[in-house]
Amino acid sequence: MSVRFALLGAGRIGKVHAKAIAANPDAELVVVADAFAVAAEDLAAAYGCGIADIDTIADDKSIDAVVICTPTDTHADLIEQFVVAGKAVFCEKPIDLSVARVRACLGVVAKHKGTLMVGFNRRFDPHFMAVKQAIAEGQIGKVEMVNIVSRDPGPPPIDYIGRSGGIFRDMTIHDFDMARFLLGEEPALVTAHASVLVDKAIGAAGDFDSANIILETDSGTQASISNSRRASYGYDQRIEVLGAQGLVSAENQRPVSIEIANGNGFTRPPLHDFFMTRYTEAYGNEIASFIAAIGSGKAATPSGEDGLKALILAEAALKSVAERRSVKVSEIAP
Amino acid sequence: MSVRFALLGAGRIGKVHAKAIAANPDAELVVVADAFAVAAEDLAAAYGCGIADIDTIADDKSIDAVVICTPTDTHADLIEQFVVAGKAVFCEKPIDLSVARVRACLGVVAKHKGTLMVGFNRRFDPHFMAVKQAIAEGQIGKVEMVNIVSRDPGPPPIDYIGRSGGIFRDMTIHDFDMARFLLGEEPALVTAHASVLVDKAIGAAGDFDSANIILETDSGTQASISNSRRASYGYDQRIEVLGAQGLVSAENQRPVSIEIANGNGFTRPPLHDFFMTRYTEAYGNEIASFIAAIGSGKAATPSGEDGLKALILAEAALKSVAERRSVKVSEIAP
Amino acid sequence: MSVRFALLGAGRIGKVHAKAIAANPDAELVVVADAFAVAAEDLAAAYGCGIADIDTIADDKSIDAVVICTPTDTHADLIEQFVVAGKAVFCEKPIDLSVARVRACLGVVAKHKGTLMVGFNRRFDPHFMAVKQAIAEGQIGKVEMVNIVSRDPGPPPIDYIGRSGGIFRDMTIHDFDMARFLLGEEPALVTAHASVLVDKAIGAAGDFDSANIILETDSGTQASISNSRRASYGYDQRIEVLGAQGLVSAENQRPVSIEIANGNGFTRPPLHDFFMTRYTEAYGNEIASFIAAIGSGKAATPSGEDGLKALILAEAALKSVAERRSVKVSEIAP
Amino acid sequence: MSVRFALLGAGRIGKVHAKAIAANPDAELVVVADAFAVAAEDLAAAYGCGIADIDTIADDKSIDAVVICTPTDTHADLIEQFVVAGKAVFCEKPIDLSVARVRACLGVVAKHKGTLMVGFNRRFDPHFMAVKQAIAEGQIGKVEMVNIVSRDPGPPPIDYIGRSGGIFRDMTIHDFDMARFLLGEEPALVTAHASVLVDKAIGAAGDFDSANIILETDSGTQASISNSRRASYGYDQRIEVLGAQGLVSAENQRPVSIEIANGNGFTRPPLHDFFMTRYTEAYGNEIASFIAAIGSGKAATPSGEDGLKALILAEAALKSVAERRSVKVSEIAP
Repeated sequence: MSVRFALLGAGRIGKVHAKAIAANPDAELVVVADAFAVAAEDLAAAYGCGIADIDTIADDKSIDAVVICTPTDTHADLIEQFVVAGKAVFCEKPIDLSVARVRACLGVVAKHKGTLMVGFNRRFDPHFMAVKQAIAEGQIGKVEMVNIVSRDPGPPPIDYIGRSGGIFRDMTIHDFDMARFLLGEEPALVTAHASVLVDKAIGAAGDFDSANIILETDSGTQASISNSRRASYGYDQRIEVLGAQGLVSAENQRPVSIEIANGNGFTRPPLHDFFMTRYTEAYGNEIASFIAAIGSGKAATPSGEDGLKALILAEAALKSVAERRSVKVSEIAP
Repeated sequence: MSVRFALLGAGRIGKVHAKAIAANPDAELVVVADAFAVAAEDLAAAYGCGIADIDTIADDKSIDAVVICTPTDTHADLIEQFVVAGKAVFCEKPIDLSVARVRACLGVVAKHKGTLMVGFNRRFDPHFMAVKQAIAEGQIGKVEMVNIVSRDPGPPPIDYIGRSGGIFRDMTIHDFDMARFLLGEEPALVTAHASVLVDKAIGAAGDFDSANIILETDSGTQASISNSRRASYGYDQRIEVLGAQGLVSAENQRPVSIEIANGNGFTRPPLHDFFMTRYTEAYGNEIASFIAAIGSGKAATPSGEDGLKALILAEAALKSVAERRSVKVSEIAP
Repeated sequence: MSVRFALLGAGRIGKVHAKAIAANPDAELVVVADAFAVAAEDLAAAYGCGIADIDTIADDKSIDAVVICTPTDTHADLIEQFVVAGKAVFCEKPIDLSVARVRACLGVVAKHKGTLMVGFNRRFDPHFMAVKQAIAEGQIGKVEMVNIVSRDPGPPPIDYIGRSGGIFRDMTIHDFDMARFLLGEEPALVTAHASVLVDKAIGAAGDFDSANIILETDSGTQASISNSRRASYGYDQRIEVLGAQGLVSAENQRPVSIEIANGNGFTRPPLHDFFMTRYTEAYGNEIASFIAAIGSGKAATPSGEDGLKALILAEAALKSVAERRSVKVSEIAP
Repeated sequence: MSVRFALLGAGRIGKVHAKAIAANPDAELVVVADAFAVAAEDLAAAYGCGIADIDTIADDKSIDAVVICTPTDTHADLIEQFVVAGKAVFCEKPIDLSVARVRACLGVVAKHKGTLMVGFNRRFDPHFMAVKQAIAEGQIGKVEMVNIVSRDPGPPPIDYIGRSGGIFRDMTIHDFDMARFLLGEEPALVTAHASVLVDKAIGAAGDFDSANIILETDSGTQASISNSRRASYGYDQRIEVLGAQGLVSAENQRPVSIEIANGNGFTRPPLHDFFMTRYTEAYGNEIASFIAAIGSGKAATPSGEDGLKALILAEAALKSVAERRSVKVSEIAP
């Protein structure tokens, strides 16, 4: 049996999911909705699916699942509408920029025993999955420290910065989720430093572009995250986990792995220049995992709760920068 | 306009091409033929295509192109039949184990101005393509030496060895093609050493499992190839090209690129264990190139002539081993 | 002209410097002092030098320079004694565990216009020097972020922990110096997290064994340091520096760089298991730099001031852990 | 007890050995001889040793051992003179360019039960030693194939080419020795291709600058060697050994191992640009091994016989190129 999908939002990330759904033998992309008719039409033409408005889709009994790729400020409302309508919901991160709103939304999901999965795609990267598996197999012993380097090739447009919720809620949130995923314990204490080094306009928009964050659990296990909105050499995404008996790490990925040697040295090409090419396999695996959860009736992971917890860490980081102190997670989420 | 494909042969490599055709937006897999009904039915079910016998397909005016994945001894006949029938033909290597038969076949193709492409998939590997491109861009200056290491994870079944034409025609033929592709000149002199080190049964079947080959062009440019039918660490596929001004190389590929460090050292996982996973992208690119050639009316590459020239090098290598001397290509192909 | 050296302290690190002096064509090891007669005799026998007590050495007009490798609590007194005696002084880090005592000592050095160099050997590692040089040449543009991973193979003996001054003053102090060396600006704000994960006895001794630290300068440039007293895979010493136009990094070093590949994967040997083998070249370069400073009359670097500043960062880190907040360097050193 | 050394020849390689002897605690450089007085004086001044002529050194009963670094055409005579004089002899490769002369020389050595070690320094490189050890420990199972890439940064002066004996006797001879060292069996069959690609003047001098060679033992084990007199990226020295159960390899070495990443990619510095810096440790280990052999009374390795066997392979390679056929080693050395 094939899962019948509706796609809400035909923008950049919507197209990524459309492609993943189309390529999945257990899924069918039935219909797309987008406020911009042209975007919906282009995607519908490319994938041979229908077009409808959101309410129509919510009422369509033949639709099993929706993928929400609309602007962030619509996410929580849409999650609620579609969970109430009995659809399995996959929502791009973040659920909302407000912890309170996310909490309310998850309350609705819980009340209706809905299926909600949040788009932390990196958990599905084959290399990071292999890191997680090595930990699970006990290959490095008890986890003691997670170190994440996560840098974008370049900053997003300034107007995006303004509505992004800031670097912690927009960019680091992936790393917060990855840290939680790998630590195996909940961070209890957060300290962050953040600066504007890449572009003053980012600072003028009230945001930062460079940050280092430390997370600590009650048992003393720690994670460090190093972020920048600029990396001239490509999309820099590295994780390593130190355990009592060893270290496991995932190195950067590049489109081609040749090397040219001459009098200047030995040169390998830059990394991927875009998250979509870097995480192509991850997006496919992510949708497959959502489909499998729907089929099995088991909980979809990462859950709405995972989305909430990463957001809380982002709030704590913001507070840490503002108050120049370590912030207890319990201050944000008592 | 989509190219309408028939697939002849629904075995292992047939499935690879079926998948590549199905995933290509400019192609459609219309029908499959296989002597084993179950194989054809399984593939037809998986890709939603029809089933027909070979003669019916040849007569079907709606079919634009065929992919020949049947046993080697049928290749030349099928190429001739489908070229005469006006279809564009993609044929898995080798065209035939006999140089004379290949010549005759190419004569038929030429007479009918047919389109024939031979399945040297490695030319379409993104990493090897990048090596070729670096050479073409002049990044290493004039090519002086090509060094290829090419090792299979393990030997094929002994009964396959018997009908394979031997290691040079079956395995090294890919490396002969790659050497020609990268040298940019035709080899004129061939010397080979071959031994049985992996499995005596391979020797009993009249074949070798370990070989080193040197190719030399009239200008003195050289290529070395090192082959083994066994590599405990996976599918070992490396090329490097030395030029007057530098070196370009393509390293091995592995499914995941994590590293685990402990008291035993730093360990990365083995390489791909199978040519299909190693060359997944290459197969997709290969079919796309064939489709593009059909669409543009330009010659498909690698051509039947490329298939012939690689086979001639294999013959020369065999003669070199037998006679313990360097063999001129002109001795085989006067 | 050869610089005539006295060595104070014939222990582990004393032997390292004795070897470096003996191998330097511009230096001569004339005499050694050690409270333990046997240690002094062994070293004197190995290097063909004399033995004397400290006061005799201070009075010996033929001695140009001393290398102080005695226990930490004697460093400041000896620096003062030998600076007053007119000798150039090289002192192992730290000058003292107390900021006030270091300040007083540096006052004496300044008053006597003495030459004092502090043993931050890592600045002289060829790989880290090349990182610094790449920055100086402008190869990565303006420095924005320094990331240091620094892990010992295993913890020191517990009794050493007790008198070490703690992980920040004993181990991280090298990383504080390296961060200052690479940032090119003074850190103004320090935040640290520290835990006991490796050995509870370390906690019982009042120390930590695992830490992450963030440094920030007034311009917003940041450094992160990740420490552990245990790394099963060897002595882990990595630095990387992100600039506006690129990244420069120095990878780990291992005694031999072979790789063994089999069904378990591709394995390289563990890293160096000891700081002496890891930094062999650094120790030689360090003494050569001291000798060159003596010969040229220029200031020796890293200076006593460098030693003080690293110690202040260690104090700030300790305060940060205790008070769970970011600590201004000006709080420690008004 | 310290071995008392005389050095014959104060040129480039003589200085390398002088340095190694001076640094060795079990040796003493007593005297140097060189036809050019200035060269001898410089070296004597640098190492504080005496100067004498060759006959005086041969008669000096206080000298235990000589290191022969004079021009190749004097090697055999000097070996004979000093073996007769009862000195342990270390001779730079080759013993002579003529197989017959080497045989005669080794006859004299045998008659006088002399100690003779030949300067195949690469056997003492720590990385290649680790490769050999991995084989000896059975880590890759039975050796099946050795692959050597050996390229010089640039060709030697043309006048050196003329008296070098040609690429096989001068450059490849190191690789022949390494192949024998790693194969663990004697090559019985040799095939070589050689070209002039780097500099036509090399061809005019009767030599080649680019070559590929295959060696095969009676059991079918093979070795490939790929040589060039030019590598713009530095001194390229790689070996790998394929066994029934795995692969062991030694990668290239570079002076510093930083990496700079920017929009052009990730660049590591070129390799060593000179054999002396590449093989610094090897030269030290080599002399230490010679000293140990003298001290223990055991045979020094690599022996004169090893020197002869490598030379025979060079002769066979030359004959192979000339006659375009595989040459049996027994044809050269019946």
